[in-house]
Amino acid sequence: MNNFEFYNPTRIVFGEGKISELDRLIPKTAKVLILFGGESARKNGTLDEVEKALGEREIGLFGGIEANPRYETLIKAVDKIKHEGFDYLLAVGGGSVIDGTKFVAAAVDFVGDSWDILLQGGTNIKSALPFGTVLTLPATGSEMNKGSVITREEFHAKRAFMSDCVYPQFSILDPTKTYTLPPRQISNGVADAFVHIIEQYLTYPVNAAVQDAFAEGLLKTLVDIGPKALANPTDYDVRANLMWTATLALNGLIGVGVPQDWSTHMLGHEITALYGLDHAQTLAIVLPAMLIEKLPQKQAKLAQYAQNVWGVTEGTEQQQALRAIELTKAFFEKLGIKTHFSDYNLSSEVIEPLVANLIKNDMVTLGEHHDITPEVSRRVYTAAL
Amino acid sequence: MNNFEFYNPTRIVFGEGKISELDRLIPKTAKVLILFGGESARKNGTLDEVEKALGEREIGLFGGIEANPRYETLIKAVDKIKHEGFDYLLAVGGGSVIDGTKFVAAAVDFVGDSWDILLQGGTNIKSALPFGTVLTLPATGSEMNKGSVITREEFHAKRAFMSDCVYPQFSILDPTKTYTLPPRQISNGVADAFVHIIEQYLTYPVNAAVQDAFAEGLLKTLVDIGPKALANPTDYDVRANLMWTATLALNGLIGVGVPQDWSTHMLGHEITALYGLDHAQTLAIVLPAMLIEKLPQKQAKLAQYAQNVWGVTEGTEQQQALRAIELTKAFFEKLGIKTHFSDYNLSSEVIEPLVANLIKNDMVTLGEHHDITPEVSRRVYTAAL
Repeated sequence: MNNFEFYNPTRIVFGEGKISELDRLIPKTAKVLILFGGESARKNGTLDEVEKALGEREIGLFGGIEANPRYETLIKAVDKIKHEGFDYLLAVGGGSVIDGTKFVAAAVDFVGDSWDILLQGGTNIKSALPFGTVLTLPATGSEMNKGSVITREEFHAKRAFMSDCVYPQFSILDPTKTYTLPPRQISNGVADAFVHIIEQYLTYPVNAAVQDAFAEGLLKTLVDIGPKALANPTDYDVRANLMWTATLALNGLIGVGVPQDWSTHMLGHEITALYGLDHAQTLAIVLPAMLIEKLPQKQAKLAQYAQNVWGVTEGTEQQQALRAIELTKAFFEKLGIKTHFSDYNLSSEVIEPLVANLIKNDMVTLGEHHDITPEVSRRVYTAAL
Repeated sequence: MNNFEFYNPTRIVFGEGKISELDRLIPKTAKVLILFGGESARKNGTLDEVEKALGEREIGLFGGIEANPRYETLIKAVDKIKHEGFDYLLAVGGGSVIDGTKFVAAAVDFVGDSWDILLQGGTNIKSALPFGTVLTLPATGSEMNKGSVITREEFHAKRAFMSDCVYPQFSILDPTKTYTLPPRQISNGVADAFVHIIEQYLTYPVNAAVQDAFAEGLLKTLVDIGPKALANPTDYDVRANLMWTATLALNGLIGVGVPQDWSTHMLGHEITALYGLDHAQTLAIVLPAMLIEKLPQKQAKLAQYAQNVWGVTEGTEQQQALRAIELTKAFFEKLGIKTHFSDYNLSSEVIEPLVANLIKNDMVTLGEHHDITPEVSRRVYTAAL
C-alpha cells in the first residue's frame, strides 16, 4: 500500500424527506443564496421544498447553471453575492450545479482575478463561503469531495481545481428526488460513477486489500442496480443504493494509497469539448479501447476485476482480462450508451483534432505510468472508431 | 436502506515515517500535552520520535493510562492541563489511550462534575480541547470515531460516551509502529475489529448493497491477513492492511443505514468486568453462542456471510448459516483465542453473576430486535461454557 492522507468533513444526510433538515443544518441567521440549474428544480417541487425548509431566513435565487458550468455564468453569481451580501450558499442540483457553487464560494473570497483559481488548480484558495448541497442527480460525487471542473467559453478552456476549503458542509441525498430524472441522465450517472471507480482501481496491484474490496463492491453494485434503476425508476432501494454508490465512488476513500489512472477521463474531455458528446458517452467510447491498449500493464488487475466483479473463473490471466473488457463494453451498451465513435456519426477525421487538443492542454503523459503519450492516445482513439 | 447521517472529519495520515508530519498538523504555537500508556512508548522510540517532530513547541507528558482507561487516572490529566495551561492534546498509543484522551479533552472544558459526561453519554458536551493521535495498536477504531469507553473503579462502572466534539483532528497511522507488539495484542486486535464489523452486519437484510459489500470486504481481509500478521510481524503490507481495516471497521461508514446488534459486546463487557478476561477473548466466547441462539432471526444474513466471506456454496440456507458460525469460531481459535468459558477456567458458577450485572447495567433488551432479555443472555452464556 502507498502512503496517503484522507480527509473528508462533509456531513451526509441521507433518506426520503431529509430536505426538511435544512433548518437544522444552516445557521438561523444565514442569508442564503440558492443556486440551481434549469427549471426542473422548480417544476418537480424541490425548490419549493427547499424554500419552505429554510423558513424565515432571507434567501435569494440564482438559476441557469449549465451542464459543464461556465465561468461566465458563475461570475454573475459572485457579483450578486458581493452586491446583496449573502453569507451561505446552497446548491440544488447535480454535479454541475455543485461544481459551479464550489467555484462561486471560493471566488467571492478570492483576492485578485478569480480565473487564477483555475490556473493554479485551487492551490491559491485561502477560504470560501460555507455551503451545502441538495443532490438531485447521482453521478459525479461532487456532493462529497473537494473537486470542481469549470468551463470558460472565451478561452475554450475546461479546467479543474481542488481545495479543502470547498468540501460541502453537508449534502442531503434524498433518493426520491431522482425518480423524475430522464433515463439518459440515470444511465450516464451509472456509467460516470462506474468509470470513476475504474480509474482508481484498474492499474496494478499494490497490496491494498481494502481499497480493492471497496472498489469491487461498488462496481458489483452498479452492475447489479444500473439496469434496475432504468427499469424501475421508483424503486426506492435501487435509487438509494445508486445514490450512495455514486457518492462513495469519488469521495476519496477508494483512491487512497493506490495508483490512479485518469486517462480515460482526459481523452473523453476532449471529445466533449470538440464534439459535444455527453461525458458518460465519451467514457464508454474511450475506456474499452484504452484497456485493450494497456493490456500488458493492466493484465493482472484486469484478471482480478474479471474474477471479483464479473465472476469469471475460466481461462488464463490474459483471457480473463480480455473477457472483463468485453463485459465492461457490454455493460455500457446494456445501459444504452454506445461505445464507438461511429455510433455518434463521428469518423476518423476527429482523431487529429482530438490529439491536437490533448497536446494543447498538456495531456501528454497520462496514465499510472505517465506513458500515455499523444501517440498512444491516437491509437486509443483510432481503436474506438 | 434505512435513513442515516454520516459525518467524520478526522484526517488520516498513513504510512511509514509519518510521525514527522506532526509539525505540519499541530499549530506552531500550541502547548502540547502528550498522553500515553506504559513505558513501551518510550522504549520502542515512538515517544522520542514524537517529541522530535514537535520541535520547539512547549510540551508536557502524561503517562500511565491503563487498558480500560480509568476515570481516576484521567482526572489527574485534566488537573494538570488546567494547572499548566496546555491547549492541545496528543494521544500516543492504542484505543485505551485515545479513549482516555477523548474524555480528558471534553472534561477540561466541561462545566460541572465531569462524571456527568459519562452519565449523559456525551450529549452534554459543548466543546473539547483539540487533539490528534499517533496510533500504535490497530484494534478499536477510536482513532477515527467519536466514541470512548471509560471505567470508574469506585463505582464499578464502565460507561461509554459519544460526541462530534471528540473526533480526533488527525490520526497518524504508521504500520511499522505495530511491529513490536506482542502476538496477543495483534490477535486481540484482529478479533476486536472482526466483531466490530459483525455487529454492524449480521442482523437482517435491508437492501444496503454498499454497506454489505464493504463489511464483507473488511471481514475477508481480516480472515486473510489475521494469521499472516501473527506469522510475519514485519510484513509491511500485511500490517498496513490490518491497520486500515481496523480503522474502517468502526469509523461509522459500514454502520450507516443498516440495523446494528451490539449484544455480543455488551455480554462480553460483563465478563471483563467480573473476571478480567481480555475484551477480544470475551467476544470470541460470546459471539458463536449468540449466533446459534439467534439463528432463526439471522439466518438469511448468516447465509450471505457464509457465501460472500467464507465462500460456502453448498447446502441449504440453514446449513450455510451453521457452517459460517463454525468457521467464525475456528477463525478465533486459529488466532489463538479460545472460545469457551472452560478454556479460561470459568465454569457454570459465573453465569448468574454475569446475568445479574447485565440487569444492573440495564442491558435487558439487546440486539437488533431488542429481544435479548436476561433470560436469552443466560442461555447464550450457558451455551458458551
